Amino acid sequence: MTPIITILTDFGLQDGFVGVMKGVILGIVPGTSIVDITHLVPPQNITAGAYIFNASAPYFPPGTIHIGVVDPGVGTARRPIAARLGSQLFVGPDNGLLTLMLARAQRAGEPVEIVHLDQPGYWRPQISTSFHGRDVFAPVAAHLARGVSLTDLGTPIQDPVLLTIPQPERTPHGLRGVVRRIDHFGNLATNITQEDIAGLGELNVRIGGARIHGLVRTFGDRPPGHLIAYITSIGNLAVAMVNGNAAQRLNAHEGDVVEVEEIGHS
Amino acid sequence: MTPIITILTDFGLQDGFVGVMKGVILGIVPGTSIVDITHLVPPQNITAGAYIFNASAPYFPPGTIHIGVVDPGVGTARRPIAARLGSQLFVGPDNGLLTLMLARAQRAGEPVEIVHLDQPGYWRPQISTSFHGRDVFAPVAAHLARGVSLTDLGTPIQDPVLLTIPQPERTPHGLRGVVRRIDHFGNLATNITQEDIAGLGELNVRIGGARIHGLVRTFGDRPPGHLIAYITSIGNLAVAMVNGNAAQRLNAHEGDVVEVEEIGHS
Amino acid sequence: MTPIITILTDFGLQDGFVGVMKGVILGIVPGTSIVDITHLVPPQNITAGAYIFNASAPYFPPGTIHIGVVDPGVGTARRPIAARLGSQLFVGPDNGLLTLMLARAQRAGEPVEIVHLDQPGYWRPQISTSFHGRDVFAPVAAHLARGVSLTDLGTPIQDPVLLTIPQPERTPHGLRGVVRRIDHFGNLATNITQEDIAGLGELNVRIGGARIHGLVRTFGDRPPGHLIAYITSIGNLAVAMVNGNAAQRLNAHEGDVVEVEEIGHS
Repeated sequence: MTPIITILTDFGLQDGFVGVMKGVILGIVPGTSIVDITHLVPPQNITAGAYIFNASAPYFPPGTIHIGVVDPGVGTARRPIAARLGSQLFVGPDNGLLTLMLARAQRAGEPVEIVHLDQPGYWRPQISTSFHGRDVFAPVAAHLARGVSLTDLGTPIQDPVLLTIPQPERTPHGLRGVVRRIDHFGNLATNITQEDIAGLGELNVRIGGARIHGLVRTFGDRPPGHLIAYITSIGNLAVAMVNGNAAQRLNAHEGDVVEVEEIGHS
Repeated sequence: MTPIITILTDFGLQDGFVGVMKGVILGIVPGTSIVDITHLVPPQNITAGAYIFNASAPYFPPGTIHIGVVDPGVGTARRPIAARLGSQLFVGPDNGLLTLMLARAQRAGEPVEIVHLDQPGYWRPQISTSFHGRDVFAPVAAHLARGVSLTDLGTPIQDPVLLTIPQPERTPHGLRGVVRRIDHFGNLATNITQEDIAGLGELNVRIGGARIHGLVRTFGDRPPGHLIAYITSIGNLAVAMVNGNAAQRLNAHEGDVVEVEEIGHS
Repeated sequence: MTPIITILTDFGLQDGFVGVMKGVILGIVPGTSIVDITHLVPPQNITAGAYIFNASAPYFPPGTIHIGVVDPGVGTARRPIAARLGSQLFVGPDNGLLTLMLARAQRAGEPVEIVHLDQPGYWRPQISTSFHGRDVFAPVAAHLARGVSLTDLGTPIQDPVLLTIPQPERTPHGLRGVVRRIDHFGNLATNITQEDIAGLGELNVRIGGARIHGLVRTFGDRPPGHLIAYITSIGNLAVAMVNGNAAQRLNAHEGDVVEVEEIGHS
């Protein structure tokens, strides 16, 4: 079975940093399928990295190894870790990148195993202070792909660093949440889920002075240029502009407030 | 033989959408060689996607499977399709993305077979309304790579949606065409082909107030900063600036008029 | 053993040019692991390409084949070449892209073998004047991956084109160098190496009106927003802003002067 390793970073695409990580991996496990998730996480934005992990890792086959390197603390005392969360493996700095994947595994009652990577024998011989993606995380992922166990790579820990993820709040007439992610199309995904609004009747969605009446199934249900509210492919309430860019139209940013109101209560 | 699947989208590079498609593919056909064509098609620009398919797909080995997802109609009644056009296979929405590849196969007298994908047994179990790249097209391409036949995946159709592609017109002294594609270097490819101008003598090319005398073989045939006209690597008349950006210099856009005149007739 | 081919270009990501090269490669050597180094080398910037090769190629396993196409002279008399430099193979235009890798191999006393690619039997049947990445370099790399020898592909040469790489100069109290590369994070790598400053005592680093006292091991050793001087993961003196962008903060550009002074001598 060809192993699969994915890579998610904030390294950008201009410098060859990600290519170097792939060179290190292929030197240890030739023939691995290596998949880029994204390398355009905003620099040092761990929360954005956690969201993208959550939207991508679950679609990979069991046993896939995911490297995540958004690592403002590289070279300091922050721990390098590896984890088995459900059927997937993860490697990266201990700074909260895994928060959503860990919560998902815990909700599902799946196995969780996390180790502090403290066995330099599985790293490159020389460890730089600024590029642990190359020197620690790529070789560790490659050794996992070779079948080395988590407990050979490090010491079990119970206290990974976790991010505080904002949750939507109940309001008298609905819910108040925030824009948690703006995608390439300018679509605004919120932290309000399909489940959160399942009990509500017909809805208005308010954001940045705009009021959107009702949810539609998909973009083509309204004419070009209209704002719509819909449920994303991973189950979050979102706002989009048909054939356009809602983020630009609304001058919206991550963290902006989104209100959902049951109709008849406004 | 390792199967090859290519992916062309307007998904951008920041969100992990393409990585997710690769995860779905590798879950069905481990070890597939997956090649990115581009994910920077301008959002919803089907015509640009069709041009890029035409410039890339013919260079892949027979049996390659090309996924194209520029899909403003996702989730509506627009059909998902798959096609065999000559020696290559294609999967995507039925919205004209295949127009140029279909015309190419028909001109060459090659086999053409198109099916409406209507067998959800080959899709992911849950189909979102906004991400058929993940839920329909990636799994269908993977099943093609496993050897499933087109007719198992869908029902033959004869009426795919086609784009109207502007053709150059004869003028008293030559041809009038348009800029059909501006590349990363700012080179302006037109819809006028090598064959269109084969019967003409020495030429001037006019675009946006500039007049370029004659065709050159390649960039190095003129000094840096000069505008040149030449034939692209896929056989189209194009305008470039040596070691510079013709699109910026001429403030040119896709659709701009380009005139070719035989010298002595101006 | 699965062969590895890397690709470094200035082709950008929007046009599918790199995908086409991969199609050509996979048509000759199915199953090859193909790794993107970067395709965002600034257009025609051979020096930047040479730096990125130097930072990436050494981390790949022996026998890796590296294609580099930054090729303003495409279609002119500039030679296409291939080379064995130490344990790695290289393919591209003869314009200086290999300067740093060649110097590295010579310093290490490793084998050096360079050939002028003059055997069109190993190229695509039709050679365009503007896309030798597709027509010459991709197929030559693929034939190397199949085991064809350098001397079958071309004729040995001893006079590759070399770039002049600026070297740091001694000053009365230290060294004067330049910014040679600005990365995605805005970190400023200089041409002053770890070895250059090994003999000096405590240092100040001056750039663009800023004076940075001492070297730190890594970013986390200073608070966010502070400028730091450190040694990069490939051994060069660099300036960064903790959790920020030093290039923007200092309005710095490649080629800007950087001064290192031993403290007590200012």
